[in-house]
Formats: sequence, C-alpha cells, structure tokens
Amino acid sequence: MKIVKAAEFTVEIDQRNEQLIDLDFDRNVLTIINDVRMNGDVALHMYTEKFDGVTLENFIVTDDEFDEAYTLVSETFISSLLKAKQRITDFHVEQKERSWFIRQEKGVVLGQQVTPIERTGIYVPGGKAAYPSTVLMNAIPAKIAGVSHIAIATPPQPDGKVNPHVLVAAKETGVECVYKVGGAQAIAAMAYGTETVRKVMKITGPGNAYVARAKKWVFGDVGIDMIAGPSEICVLADETANAAFAAADLLSQAEHDERAAAICVTTSELFAGELMTEVEMRLSDMERREIASRSISDFGRIIVVESMNEAIEVLNKIAPEHLQIMVDNPMATLPYIRNAGAIFIGPFSPEALGDYMAGPNHTLPTSGTAAFSSALGVNDFMKKSSIIHYTEEALKEVADDIIVLAEAERLTGHAESIRMRKGEAE
Amino acid sequence: MKIVKAAEFTVEIDQRNEQLIDLDFDRNVLTIINDVRMNGDVALHMYTEKFDGVTLENFIVTDDEFDEAYTLVSETFISSLLKAKQRITDFHVEQKERSWFIRQEKGVVLGQQVTPIERTGIYVPGGKAAYPSTVLMNAIPAKIAGVSHIAIATPPQPDGKVNPHVLVAAKETGVECVYKVGGAQAIAAMAYGTETVRKVMKITGPGNAYVARAKKWVFGDVGIDMIAGPSEICVLADETANAAFAAADLLSQAEHDERAAAICVTTSELFAGELMTEVEMRLSDMERREIASRSISDFGRIIVVESMNEAIEVLNKIAPEHLQIMVDNPMATLPYIRNAGAIFIGPFSPEALGDYMAGPNHTLPTSGTAAFSSALGVNDFMKKSSIIHYTEEALKEVADDIIVLAEAERLTGHAESIRMRKGEAE
Repeated sequence: MKIVKAAEFTVEIDQRNEQLIDLDFDRNVLTIINDVRMNGDVALHMYTEKFDGVTLENFIVTDDEFDEAYTLVSETFISSLLKAKQRITDFHVEQKERSWFIRQEKGVVLGQQVTPIERTGIYVPGGKAAYPSTVLMNAIPAKIAGVSHIAIATPPQPDGKVNPHVLVAAKETGVECVYKVGGAQAIAAMAYGTETVRKVMKITGPGNAYVARAKKWVFGDVGIDMIAGPSEICVLADETANAAFAAADLLSQAEHDERAAAICVTTSELFAGELMTEVEMRLSDMERREIASRSISDFGRIIVVESMNEAIEVLNKIAPEHLQIMVDNPMATLPYIRNAGAIFIGPFSPEALGDYMAGPNHTLPTSGTAAFSSALGVNDFMKKSSIIHYTEEALKEVADDIIVLAEAERLTGHAESIRMRKGEAE
Repeated sequence: MKIVKAAEFTVEIDQRNEQLIDLDFDRNVLTIINDVRMNGDVALHMYTEKFDGVTLENFIVTDDEFDEAYTLVSETFISSLLKAKQRITDFHVEQKERSWFIRQEKGVVLGQQVTPIERTGIYVPGGKAAYPSTVLMNAIPAKIAGVSHIAIATPPQPDGKVNPHVLVAAKETGVECVYKVGGAQAIAAMAYGTETVRKVMKITGPGNAYVARAKKWVFGDVGIDMIAGPSEICVLADETANAAFAAADLLSQAEHDERAAAICVTTSELFAGELMTEVEMRLSDMERREIASRSISDFGRIIVVESMNEAIEVLNKIAPEHLQIMVDNPMATLPYIRNAGAIFIGPFSPEALGDYMAGPNHTLPTSGTAAFSSALGVNDFMKKSSIIHYTEEALKEVADDIIVLAEAERLTGHAESIRMRKGEAE
C-alpha cells in the first residue's frame, strides 16, 4: 500500500491504457476461432483435450449430472442462493423498459418497440474457483428480459464435470443448457454454432484474457456485454470512517486478482495512516494472501487530498468499478459522482454485499470504463425497434424538406421516393 | 433482382457471416493506431497527406471557416435542416432515462443514477458525398444526454476544407470542435488524444472499412456505437401494396452502396412480378444507377412466401435494418416483428422519411445485428451507476447468506468483510 498525492496519482491513471496492442496474441485467439468455425465439434474436442486436459464424450451437461449436483451442495447454499435470486430479481424487474408510442402531430405516430434477444450465452469461468454468482447476475436479467434460450459455457474440471454450485445456480435461474466448453473455443462455438452448441445472438460473462479477446473478435457478429479488465474498488473516506471496515473491503477486492486495484481517497492524513496499518495487519491473516499482497503492493494506493471537492474530482477521473462512500453524510456526495459502476453508501454497504445479495448487478464496468459504460442489466438482453408511421398528409408536410436534405447529400434516389409520393398526393 | 423462395433465401442468410477474419487487414489498421498513439499530431499530418492528399497547418476548423460555410449553403437547406433538427429532438427527448431510487424494505435503498458521458466524438465520412444528416443523428442525442464536449472528425476535401453542409449542421447542433482528420487515424486520435485532438470517452458514427476496424480495436479503451456493415431494406408487401412505391424505396437503399441489400418479402406472386418490372424500369433513370444496379443484381431479392406467418418468420430471421410494412392493416403485424432496426408502417412512411425527418435515429443495426442491438439513442450517451445503501440492521438480515455464497466461491476475504460488520452489530 502506498500513500500518494492526487497529482502523482492522476499521472498513473492517465497511463492506465498506455499498453499498445499486440497482434501475436490475437493470432492465437483467431486460430482457435477460425478452427471452431470450420471444424465445429471436432475442434471443440481437440481444444478441450489440449487446454482442459479432459476427453469428453458429450459437451452437454445431462439431467443426471444436474441431479447429482443437488446432492453435492448444502441446503444452506441453496437457501442463500434463492434469497440472492429473489433480491437480484426484485431490483432488475425495475429496470425493464416498456415499448411506447407517441402521436406527435396529426397523422404522425412514432415509438419504440422493445423486444427480448432470442438466444443468449453466458460464459462462466471455471478453473480453481466456481462462480455461481456469475450465473445469477447474467441469467436473471436475461430471464426478466424474456430471452427464450439461455445457455452457459464453462470449462470442465479435470474429472470432466462442472462445479455443482454452478449447475444448481443454472437450474434455479432457468438456464436451458450448460456446455462443458471453455476459453476462446467456447466463445467461438456460441457465436457461430457447432453441431452441438447452438448459435446465440449475444454473449455475456467474465473470462480470462483468451475469452476477453475472443469476445472482442466475435463482437459485431454477435453482441457482447463488455471487455472486462482488472477489477477495482475505490473507498472515499474522511476522518469519520472506520479503518478496519475500509481495510477489509479493500482486501476483499485485492483477493480477486493480482491485477486488481484497491484504492482509497481520503481527506484525512490520520485516516490514511490507520488504514495502512489495518491493511498490513489483516493481509497476513488472509487465505488468499499471496494474490492479495501482490495486488496491494502493485496497485494499492491511498490518495490523500486537500478537500472533498478534490476527492470527488479524483474519483471521477478514476471512474471506479466499485465506489464505497464512507464519509459523514454520504448521500450528499451522490450528485457529484459522475463516473462509477456501482456506488455503495455508508459503512454497512460493503462491496461484498453488492457482489452477492444487494440486488443490483455485479457485472460492472472496470478499469475506468465506467466513464462510458454501465452495469449489465435487463436492457442488455433487449433491443429496440423504432416505429414510424406517417399518413399521406403528414408526409406531404415534410416532403420538400426531405428532398432538400437528400439532394444536399446527393442521394437523389431518396429524393425520388418522396417526390413520387408527393405527386400522388396532389 | 431475383425472385426466390423462402427456403432458398434462408440459406443465404445463414451464410451472411461466413467470411473468416483476416489479420492482414488488421495489421494495417493497427499500424496507424499505434503510430497515432506514439507520435500524435506528427502521425496525423503524415496520414492526412498520404490518404487525403492535403497538407494542413491546423486540423481544427476555424470560426472563419464556419462563417464561410454559412455563405455556401442555401437558405432552404438551413431551414430544412432546422426542421429536421426539431423533429429529431422531439423524438429523442422521449428516450431520456431518469435516475431512480427505490426503498425495497426497511433500511435498504437501491437505485440507478443516470449521468451523461463527458466527451464524445462523432466520425462523419467525407469523400465523394457529405452527410449533414449524420451530424444531426449523432449530435442531437448526445446533446440531449447532456454530453458537455461533442467533437467531430471528418476527412478534409482536396482543398483542405470540410463540406459546408456538414459544418452548418455541426454548428446548429452545438458541436464544440470539428477536426479535419479522417480514417483510422481519426479514430485513434479521438480514442487516445493527440496534442490537437482531445481524447473522448465514446466514438460514434459510420465510416469505411478502416474506420470500422479501428473502432473495433479501440473499443474497450473508449465506447463505440456499433460496427456498421452494409445497410439493408426489407419491404413486406401483399397484393394491396403499391409496386412503384416499393420499387422506389428499394432503389433508395440500393443507391447507398454496392453492397447494400434491397429485399422484398411478399405473399403475392403477382406483386413480385410487378415489382420486378418497376425496379428494372426505374433503375435506368437513376443518377446513381451504377451503384444501385450492382446492389440490385448482387443482393436484390424478392422472396415469395405462402402466408403472412411465413413472411414474418423470414423477416425475423433477416433482422433488417429498415423494415417497411406495406400490407393491408400494417399495424396488426407489429407485435410479431421481433427483429428490425426501424419499422416503417404504411405506404407513406418510406425509408427516406426516417433517414432525414421522421424523428427516430437513422443510425440503425445493419446486416442482421438488429437481432441483438438497437438504433443509436440518447442512452448511448449516458451511463448508469447502481446505488446501494444498507443500514446496519439491513445488512445483518443478509449477512449469513453473503458469507455462505462467498465461501462457496472461496472468496474468504469477501466473507470476512461481512463477518466483521456482523460482529460489530451484535
């Protein structure tokens, strides 16, 4: 953990995206994508053997495997999962946009028809850990949107199975189909379809560098949610904040990933010192201390600022994924926060609450992308069609203007399609 | 124009995305992007000389150039432009989402705070034609969203100027700054900033293959609207439709681009024949007949179907950018249309109306992407922050569930951040 001044830190933020793009990495990813497009299941089998070290007869999780999963998880887990499902559902139903129509003047009806995406795919990372919460946070908004076919792709464990917590979460949220396929090959399979994997229209969910890059490549042929970078937390604290709470929250972020960033912006030098001590102390007790210490030493920062105004400017520049406001009268700062994925207000709203249970989505814009993007939500699984209806008279009102503009763009065929209707109208 | 059966055509649609990705093209685009990132304005000068054939002293359009632009366009043009601006504004204000808060139970406040993106860039194609309507359709929603700095990048003409229609549209919609820079170099400059070009957080607007590819590469570091492919129109017609109208509308799409697709789906074989005749007849009178005939012969299709149900299935599979419904009782079909960028209802709602004047955005999902994406809108220039506030008591209610879920994911630091608050609460 390093204590720095705002000015120093601002330079670090500006350098955040300074890494130039590397085509060699893309070549590897593209080889996999093209192979899956051309060879379908054969390619999937090959990559699954190569990367996951398993030979699978069938990529689709069977009913028996789902049944088995229920015997492998605790009652307590299922009960907590269902409680989380309920809360996430309650929040997300509020997001659902409706179709609307307006009559703007005589003979003009305009509107927006909102419809669900038909089929979507969720990538759920596997490997060392299992993420049932990823299933909830992706499948629930898709379900509320009205998506009719939700599939999951997740890498198989060495025994050829999928983690039972993930399977139970999939079943409880109405996922249609779970494929035991991981990596770039899973993204390609869902984007283009194979004999076994059904093509979807959109792919969401986190993943490693291969998954992220594959999503970038298939983007345009299918929709994607976002390119997730390393995750971060930012705590805004004044002298009234509880340093032990703040330290625990910073460390909960740090344990995710060595590249995760835990940042505190504070108006109090005294608090900065206390926090530093708390972080160092708690770090040594952590189960995942190797990952967390790496993150804290490389990206952990305590930024001491002169005033709350300066603090807010720094925060808006960071555009953190998670922002915890631990100051006196935290609600008062809200109108000044422009860039943040999720804002946690007060000492009893830690990030972990939002990761699992609060209701809002935990899929948030990382690495400063909160400056231009938002949490995953119901709208990411819907799309809008504009509706335009003009009567003959209404068109006549604007016909000459359309012709003028079309001709300024030298699109005379456009002008003609209006002119002929005007003729008829006379 | 080719008359085909639905089954035949469905195969064509499935092959729409079959082209495999080509890394050599990306290498060229990346060279430009990296060069601009490393060398800033020097690189911009070099590429502008190379691709646009002009040496510019200054990339920024001056006040004098804006003044001159007003002397070069007609009064009629300005008046039609302002009328379009008004109508586009009237529609888009209806789209603006508001922040909201809900109190879901004792001690729990959740919400969504909606804020504008701070700075955005619009790419406006130059070359042979000028597109003031592109300026309207991008700048107006950005302005309504509350974006504080809107910039345009557009390639200079051979005389080093920008088309006056574009400049007038920029001025009238409150664009802050117009840069005379085009191609992939313009996208890189707006994404990363140079000495002259200010970095933005999001880039929207159409462009050639280089521009589209550059947008795909910078996506993630900045937001982008969509990867625009060739544009298309689909007319749904029964025996009551006016073949001359339909033909003119198909041709208005065909004149855009040789790769544009003009498609009619009809339940009437008789109408198919009439339409064929009308298209061929009108084609020869068109100013842009070279482009249009190429489009019509390569991608023009009349699909004859057995029933309205079959027609709608085919349409949903095509997911057209523009859908014109020219059947008896067109409104009745609306609830069955799942995938379309914009839906034009009835004989007096041609595509050209929507391109300039109806109100809804003309930046629409192309090449089947309407299956998972939407027209550009005000929301594309805003982002949402989730709001989470729990009191001590409210957190206590869910603390054990969070701990169970965090431990199922082996994120014990997350569990600890909750456990210590529970301790405090007891």
